Amino acid sequence: MAKSLESEHPIKAYGYAAHDTSGKFSPVTFSRRFLFLFNCLIGYWGERRGSKFFTAESVIQIFTLARTNGGHEIVGIVTEVGSKVEKFKVGDTVGVGCLVDSCRSCESCISDCEQFCAKQVQTYGVQNYDGTQAYGGYSDHMISDEHFVLRWPEKLPLDSGAPLLCAGITTYSPLRYFGLDKPGTKVGVVGLGGLGHVAVKMAKAFGAEVTVFSTTAAKKEEAIEGLKADHFIISKDEEQMKAAMGTLDGIIDTVSGNHPILGLLGTLKPNGKLVILGAPEKPHEVAAFSLIFGRKTVAGSAIGGLKETQEMLDFAAEHGITADVEVIP
Amino acid sequence: MAKSLESEHPIKAYGYAAHDTSGKFSPVTFSRRFLFLFNCLIGYWGERRGSKFFTAESVIQIFTLARTNGGHEIVGIVTEVGSKVEKFKVGDTVGVGCLVDSCRSCESCISDCEQFCAKQVQTYGVQNYDGTQAYGGYSDHMISDEHFVLRWPEKLPLDSGAPLLCAGITTYSPLRYFGLDKPGTKVGVVGLGGLGHVAVKMAKAFGAEVTVFSTTAAKKEEAIEGLKADHFIISKDEEQMKAAMGTLDGIIDTVSGNHPILGLLGTLKPNGKLVILGAPEKPHEVAAFSLIFGRKTVAGSAIGGLKETQEMLDFAAEHGITADVEVIP
Repeated sequence: MAKSLESEHPIKAYGYAAHDTSGKFSPVTFSRRFLFLFNCLIGYWGERRGSKFFTAESVIQIFTLARTNGGHEIVGIVTEVGSKVEKFKVGDTVGVGCLVDSCRSCESCISDCEQFCAKQVQTYGVQNYDGTQAYGGYSDHMISDEHFVLRWPEKLPLDSGAPLLCAGITTYSPLRYFGLDKPGTKVGVVGLGGLGHVAVKMAKAFGAEVTVFSTTAAKKEEAIEGLKADHFIISKDEEQMKAAMGTLDGIIDTVSGNHPILGLLGTLKPNGKLVILGAPEKPHEVAAFSLIFGRKTVAGSAIGGLKETQEMLDFAAEHGITADVEVIP
Repeated sequence: MAKSLESEHPIKAYGYAAHDTSGKFSPVTFSRRFLFLFNCLIGYWGERRGSKFFTAESVIQIFTLARTNGGHEIVGIVTEVGSKVEKFKVGDTVGVGCLVDSCRSCESCISDCEQFCAKQVQTYGVQNYDGTQAYGGYSDHMISDEHFVLRWPEKLPLDSGAPLLCAGITTYSPLRYFGLDKPGTKVGVVGLGGLGHVAVKMAKAFGAEVTVFSTTAAKKEEAIEGLKADHFIISKDEEQMKAAMGTLDGIIDTVSGNHPILGLLGTLKPNGKLVILGAPEKPHEVAAFSLIFGRKTVAGSAIGGLKETQEMLDFAAEHGITADVEVIP
């Protein structure tokens, strides 16, 4: 990387960056790499509720120079396309999620699971294949290969739809992969944050009977009235947990803080699946007997492939699913 | 249970029992319950390598009076049948495994997963539905409902085949359920005890490429020469573990002692499954990130349903699979 920053990034861009760990973003101008296949003018960007500070902090951890970073749930309008672009034309509304490149040749890439590619390029905080920096979507325009760009459904709002590019696919994918997408399936959702509230909406749209687990009694109204969940359980309440024993086909656990999962495993039916989306600091303690009796599963999941992400956007548009967002002008 | 022991158990039987925790079994005569649907004369019984002492000890924990106990891998000859028996006739060779009854009406029983029935009656150490004691197979005859009796394949030896009624189904079932039964599948087996050596044989019969993990270098010959495993890894050897990163579709972990599973999870491909059959005293520590990146699974499994157990016996007979046993006259 002997090139100067200017030759690496000849395109002037305007964006927002976190310069310290305060969680505050402020405007900045910087330069981006030249058009590869196309770029799109960013009109909106979304940021999941609850993860903003995580984003700002992790940026500081990764970069020595924090400029314009973050933003992995991006919606915009195509302003220019490369000569080989087939899927899009100038003026199309498009989305970019957590990935902007991958090797395209490994077993995972070939089977539409780019999220498992060991050479994947995430939307920000890492290097592109050409050695330049991936800057993410907190700026007035960005570049991405068309393979990693999603067609934005007409009926899906730009602002409240954008977070689906991460929170949507992260919850939709495990519901589908672990067979929790059938009408009448009994699905638990742990936590009602950025991922959890979308998980409830997705599961309800699949026709599932949804139980929300929370440590906060005050969340009951949001769960039942707001999100139309069928049941609400205070996960610290032993009586409530006991009453739910052996009732669920699967659970989507969105909590990132340390929390016990033994009780959650108890609420699963035989063959039940607990899918972990959050990454607590401490490892989960999993007693073997809690899995052996009933052939239960603890699994993890993160985002999804591009094909499935497009499928998810279309599903969300069809069922009127959006994320709850706060729009910052 | 106001009945006397004699009226509960009018049939005289001869058997072997553990009277203390020494692990020694000695002859005893006792009485068994009356013929329910049929009984069979026990000619052989099998006991998994390594679990004999566990059996003797757990009996003491469960009973206040230890008489003839244990024995959940039983082969025998039918000597009498009840009037409603359809599957068997006097003289048939049959097997009885870990279960002798279940409710027959719950979701699990109806779907041929009697092993999940909450009202299951295990072959020994618990009460039958009529309130009498289930005594297991360490005796000259025993009683079981025909639903829980397996047709013994002609080609399968009685002595070395008997342990398949537990060790066989316990390893066959997860290989099938978790999709590790396809030719070319890359399967790991952790531990080479009673379950592990049968797991290797089953996986090889399915056409899998098998890697044995062990902490004991001396097991290499048994694994490679004896059991025809393809690879052998010392699980404490960091270099060997590192070289195996991301190579396996699934792992059958048969170890009952406390052991770390983080390294094993690392050897799984995306979508890989670690299936736990042993129940260590301490809970496993499962770091969320080790599951999330690659949508990996930690699951448990125990025995299988009756239909699948019959399928397993037929498969074992077809492929010449038996357990390594020591026959005690």
